[in-house]
Amino acid sequence: MRKPIIGVMGSGDKAREVDIKTAFELGSLIAQQNWVLLSGGRNNGVMDAVNKGANSSGGLTIGVMPTKDNDLISEAVDVAIITDMGSARNNINVLSSDVVVACGMGGAGTASEIALALKSNKPVILLNNSDESRQFFRKIGGMLIHEAKSARQTIEIAASLVPKTARE
Amino acid sequence: MRKPIIGVMGSGDKAREVDIKTAFELGSLIAQQNWVLLSGGRNNGVMDAVNKGANSSGGLTIGVMPTKDNDLISEAVDVAIITDMGSARNNINVLSSDVVVACGMGGAGTASEIALALKSNKPVILLNNSDESRQFFRKIGGMLIHEAKSARQTIEIAASLVPKTARE
Amino acid sequence: MRKPIIGVMGSGDKAREVDIKTAFELGSLIAQQNWVLLSGGRNNGVMDAVNKGANSSGGLTIGVMPTKDNDLISEAVDVAIITDMGSARNNINVLSSDVVVACGMGGAGTASEIALALKSNKPVILLNNSDESRQFFRKIGGMLIHEAKSARQTIEIAASLVPKTARE
Amino acid sequence: MRKPIIGVMGSGDKAREVDIKTAFELGSLIAQQNWVLLSGGRNNGVMDAVNKGANSSGGLTIGVMPTKDNDLISEAVDVAIITDMGSARNNINVLSSDVVVACGMGGAGTASEIALALKSNKPVILLNNSDESRQFFRKIGGMLIHEAKSARQTIEIAASLVPKTARE
Repeated sequence: MRKPIIGVMGSGDKAREVDIKTAFELGSLIAQQNWVLLSGGRNNGVMDAVNKGANSSGGLTIGVMPTKDNDLISEAVDVAIITDMGSARNNINVLSSDVVVACGMGGAGTASEIALALKSNKPVILLNNSDESRQFFRKIGGMLIHEAKSARQTIEIAASLVPKTARE
Repeated sequence: MRKPIIGVMGSGDKAREVDIKTAFELGSLIAQQNWVLLSGGRNNGVMDAVNKGANSSGGLTIGVMPTKDNDLISEAVDVAIITDMGSARNNINVLSSDVVVACGMGGAGTASEIALALKSNKPVILLNNSDESRQFFRKIGGMLIHEAKSARQTIEIAASLVPKTARE
Repeated sequence: MRKPIIGVMGSGDKAREVDIKTAFELGSLIAQQNWVLLSGGRNNGVMDAVNKGANSSGGLTIGVMPTKDNDLISEAVDVAIITDMGSARNNINVLSSDVVVACGMGGAGTASEIALALKSNKPVILLNNSDESRQFFRKIGGMLIHEAKSARQTIEIAASLVPKTARE
Repeated sequence: MRKPIIGVMGSGDKAREVDIKTAFELGSLIAQQNWVLLSGGRNNGVMDAVNKGANSSGGLTIGVMPTKDNDLISEAVDVAIITDMGSARNNINVLSSDVVVACGMGGAGTASEIALALKSNKPVILLNNSDESRQFFRKIGGMLIHEAKSARQTIEIAASLVPKTARE
């Protein structure tokens, strides 16, 4: 029986301070649930913070890397999957996750991951996304879109989604 | 000297009638410019129509296919690139295009292509997109986002972008 | 009715002079058959030569590129498909081809393309491959493996395979 | 500090009984070294056996899956990476591994993984491969190719390679 995998997506170098704090807390809570964390694996912004949070609580962290450059891997990633396929790896991120969380005011990369998740009928939690993001993705994603205002609320919603996903 | 490639993205089975008509006209105009048409290559909706339009005006059409299923290829595709990588091929669509056009009220697949295009700094023309789509992508895409209300206007904008792209 | 696509694989910077000459002739003959040439698209070795050969006879040439680096595209490529997925694009090369030709003493990249072609049940023509290559791929590829000693013989064999492939 | 990842490649449905036995032992020994096992993740042949072996000794197992079909995942895989990109995922398998082991008389899929590993300068251990395979890959792989006749010998060779790889 495999553990649930929670994919957390968010900005690298353009992440806001508040999003980085929330990402750390979210990673820690994911680990405390005994879930596996999957992310884009880079060593900055939301990606780095969520891995460090999960690591601090003893969780397993998977980083799905866009390039072969080892210097870009967050030190808190336990297992690095090297795709060398740039942003095409975003689809792997969402397909491998039972629930996808978009953490903070992400940019185009995060937007592509939300859209790819919806395309594959994966549930998505928008955590502190912009108004424009929430309105757009609610329009195209319907019931697959959930919204949260804190790391703790994200975990509550994810907990309700994980068994549904597992049952499929 | 390679011809410019215009990537046209849009819905398959959920395309509206008006979007299909516009796609056909757009494909025809692209071919008349002597540009190459690239699309997702499927035999329905916007994808099928834009290829048929380009074909009707003697243009070259490239279809970048998500699966190995030959039955899903539009008959108006001249060269089918078989990726067998599902929606991860959406990144190839935008990377291979000099200008990306999102034609009509697309779904999650089209949204992912707009986002992936922005991620790679490709100019995007939103042709008859929804208000929510235009507002969201203007927010994250800034100057890369252009808007058009007709196939003809799309061509005018693309014509202004193609040389810029080529100059890079 | 799409034209047959012949995929020609071979070394870039390590190609032998004889393989480059053969590749040019092969490209020219492919174009004379009115077939489409598909290759890895780079501007050196077998890849560059086969595109130049096809170009010299007025054929259509498709280059499936491993990176976003425009400077690496052969000037004889008409349509560049930008995958940005490194050697994972080798699978796209073979899936998109009706017949795969391994031209000359290729290295590890060409070997991966032969193997991936066999994995997908594509017919492969080994043109001037090493003894070790021919023995190994005959062992694992059986009836899918064909051998040729000249560009002209390659075309004869390909001509016998193309309709079979099309009939499927 | 990430644990070394050993990628074990081999046949699914065409694996010989002896290769399956060796794969199980190899997986167990990899886990005893506290290394991570990475494989193609399917529920048959070498892939299934090596995961079960690692699992039986408490190791962490990563399966990089070719399709979205959950029914094909070995029950001994702890973390399934869903690529949905068919054999193109073979490149991810080798890029993510510090050492690649080809276990037994593999078919075309395994051959493609050996070739892709060599293309990326990854060390490869041929464990009970055919004579033709060993001769061919020695020719194109040179010093990157190692040969073993037992699971235990494979571990010894891998142990000598892992630090070299880590030092890079």
